[in-house]
Amino acid sequence: MANKKITSRDVDFAQWYTDVVTAARLASYSNVKGFVIYEPNGYAIWERIMHEFDKQLKATGHQNVAMPMLIPENLMNKEGELISGFAPEVAWVTQGGEKTLEERLCIRPTSETLFSDYYSNVVKSYRDLPMKLNQWCSVLRWEKETRPFLRSREFFWQEGHTVHATKEEAEKETMDMFQMYQQFFENYLAIPVVTGRKTEKEKFAGAEYTYTIEALMHNGVALQSGTSHYFGQKFAEAYNIQFLNKENKLEYAYQTSWGISNRMIGALIMVHGDDMGLVLPPRIAPKQVVIISIGEDEKVNSVTSDLYQKLLNAGISVSIDDTDKSPGFKFAEAEVNGIPVRIEVGKRDLENDVITIARRDTGEKMTVSKDEDIVPYINHLMDDIQDNLYQKALKRQQELTFEARSLDEVEKIMEEHPGFVKADWCGSLDCEMKMKEIKGTKSRCILEQEQPLTGKCIVCGKEAKHLVVWGIQY
Amino acid sequence: MANKKITSRDVDFAQWYTDVVTAARLASYSNVKGFVIYEPNGYAIWERIMHEFDKQLKATGHQNVAMPMLIPENLMNKEGELISGFAPEVAWVTQGGEKTLEERLCIRPTSETLFSDYYSNVVKSYRDLPMKLNQWCSVLRWEKETRPFLRSREFFWQEGHTVHATKEEAEKETMDMFQMYQQFFENYLAIPVVTGRKTEKEKFAGAEYTYTIEALMHNGVALQSGTSHYFGQKFAEAYNIQFLNKENKLEYAYQTSWGISNRMIGALIMVHGDDMGLVLPPRIAPKQVVIISIGEDEKVNSVTSDLYQKLLNAGISVSIDDTDKSPGFKFAEAEVNGIPVRIEVGKRDLENDVITIARRDTGEKMTVSKDEDIVPYINHLMDDIQDNLYQKALKRQQELTFEARSLDEVEKIMEEHPGFVKADWCGSLDCEMKMKEIKGTKSRCILEQEQPLTGKCIVCGKEAKHLVVWGIQY
Repeated sequence: MANKKITSRDVDFAQWYTDVVTAARLASYSNVKGFVIYEPNGYAIWERIMHEFDKQLKATGHQNVAMPMLIPENLMNKEGELISGFAPEVAWVTQGGEKTLEERLCIRPTSETLFSDYYSNVVKSYRDLPMKLNQWCSVLRWEKETRPFLRSREFFWQEGHTVHATKEEAEKETMDMFQMYQQFFENYLAIPVVTGRKTEKEKFAGAEYTYTIEALMHNGVALQSGTSHYFGQKFAEAYNIQFLNKENKLEYAYQTSWGISNRMIGALIMVHGDDMGLVLPPRIAPKQVVIISIGEDEKVNSVTSDLYQKLLNAGISVSIDDTDKSPGFKFAEAEVNGIPVRIEVGKRDLENDVITIARRDTGEKMTVSKDEDIVPYINHLMDDIQDNLYQKALKRQQELTFEARSLDEVEKIMEEHPGFVKADWCGSLDCEMKMKEIKGTKSRCILEQEQPLTGKCIVCGKEAKHLVVWGIQY
Repeated sequence: MANKKITSRDVDFAQWYTDVVTAARLASYSNVKGFVIYEPNGYAIWERIMHEFDKQLKATGHQNVAMPMLIPENLMNKEGELISGFAPEVAWVTQGGEKTLEERLCIRPTSETLFSDYYSNVVKSYRDLPMKLNQWCSVLRWEKETRPFLRSREFFWQEGHTVHATKEEAEKETMDMFQMYQQFFENYLAIPVVTGRKTEKEKFAGAEYTYTIEALMHNGVALQSGTSHYFGQKFAEAYNIQFLNKENKLEYAYQTSWGISNRMIGALIMVHGDDMGLVLPPRIAPKQVVIISIGEDEKVNSVTSDLYQKLLNAGISVSIDDTDKSPGFKFAEAEVNGIPVRIEVGKRDLENDVITIARRDTGEKMTVSKDEDIVPYINHLMDDIQDNLYQKALKRQQELTFEARSLDEVEKIMEEHPGFVKADWCGSLDCEMKMKEIKGTKSRCILEQEQPLTGKCIVCGKEAKHLVVWGIQY
């Protein structure tokens, strides 16, 4: 049963996305051009993500801090590649407290500069290392187009910035965080990802290399979903982060940075959502279970509150929809909001000593004895939903992953139905740019563990260095 | 035993404050003028505050959202009093993405404008009301002087903004939140507060009235610690927030806003801290217990890890300091960081089957059987510390609360030792300004429940309308 307010996903995917965001009240456009308002339902998902991922950060020895939101121009300019990468898209503060500032300040687009400046002040000896800091904040990039959760001038993220005494340790951190991202996507968001190193063209401005996790949306468009950068000593040299090593000699430190953002909410919508609205994996859903009673009498009320109490006590996020709307309206609302499990407590059902349980992912309805041991039943059901969502997404991703042995093949795939396209590449920028002419196809990442398909670059025919996954991106 | 890095509190209070902030690594000055860096130890306290207070917000039906950080000038200007109150201290973005903007945007100093604009779009009927939204964010005010946690250009806070169908309901919300602040200060921060309504001069720009909680620092200086504002229909009229009421007539909505900020960390330092550093109440301390072993052998290690596991399992925030520093160094560090309870597991102590437990608030050391039932012991001790800190602070506040019956008396008190001064006031701005000439003494709040002392205004001698608490403020 489709929702009238939502355009069919197969008819117009972009409009479907906007409709889901609006109908599920996740975000709305603000009167500040290019900025969105993260409404309660949308922000609650972000809170769940922060809560779960922050636990993992703390468990692995990371600490949260808060750096200033503004960066003086001279500090921003110290590392040349970074500023040339970000200059076209930053916002500048030029007036403060009715005065024109002597030096303009940009609103952080990312905070390598501030963390590096801080580290240059506090890192003295190898004993101070590693320092593994993180912040949850919003950053600004002056984007021209706005799509809630995918691209807007202000977005929310975590940015981790670490400094280490050795290359090996910094490289391990880069890899560890990249793997933590992958596992978070798979285990919490139920989203499979393709992973690997970015090409030189696509890596982060200022990084020695970048690892990325890439997810495929239902329509076959790729979404860069999390990146982890190794900086070597580049920023340490630009910002003078030196420490006395074990041999009592001054040495430049080794750094990393890594981030995931509220794009994740966009990915959740576009990977799991359907024509009825949002579909949330139980492990990240702010509300896991909603109980709706149909008809009202003593028995209905007592069964409802009994179920509620049992689930609540078991640590399940449950609520009762006791508004004065009709049951049908409540069902539709639970569906559009993507609540994984709906329990219906009906007067007639109770005459047969049963309740009805509906799962959002498949729409299936189950008749269950009212005396069923409800906590293990629901926990098991939620595990099943979580797993089913992942398997469905994986199947879709596999169906939309292609191998191409010629440019014609790439063109044909992208015309018919975009997706991930595996193809050999010689490593040259020219060939990467040539691929881009096909509907903006870009390299997603280098598959380091896999061998080239034919051994020849798909564009120039010269010897292939890498097997690369290509895709059209958000 | 004083800490060498910390100036004595009685010698130079301002320097003592700075020394504690630095020695406990709570915050440091950044290279961005007027901005501070919230370091791990400082930010961890803020996280604890957010965690505890956010639970209370959610339990009372508030929902979190995120509004844009930038406000277009025309939107900011719609309510006249607000903008005239904030205009001198906002920062303006005039350039975005290499272009000069057609309209400048200010970085939010507070977000009444954005919430009101949002409400004007989404509030249609009394059925949509109340809407009780909140955001945790940072805001900017272009302050000239910087003191970490007390006054800096960027600070962190929560700002709640609610909209209601009736005056009564909005006034109740104003009062409920004000009381929630008071209880949070007393129950979690162990800080007693004086509470009441602000005078016209001191109320929030644009509010009909403001309620405030005011805390007294160890040196007798007052700190405005949390405010709750009732707006009536002022913003609703300026931003056109109208709804169909139960009689099906259009009516302007009633609003409130309220906030508490990272000033709370400044209050924690200045109310409870001493010459050894920070002193944190157990209910808000990020680390409640630290275990330090002295000497190393199998028995020491096994007792240490056994204690750790028991406390951890009981939900107590405990850590083992297993760095290779000396025990004395570790003790000092635990003290400067304000960790409420320190457990020492020593080789020699264990020969007598005891461990040593030290409480940070009094410095007292207790010898306890190693077979003591440690969880209830520590929980009881922490309750005792929490209570002791509150009682000590209350006693200090009472000692530094004076009654004055003449301007001379006020002057004498403020010269000898500042504090809270109760004095009668006629209600005129002139008399309030006259008080300010005495070392900047300002009204803190009107004591609505208390009767005037003499019935005559302390300044002009005319009939007193209110008993007011006055103080020198941060």
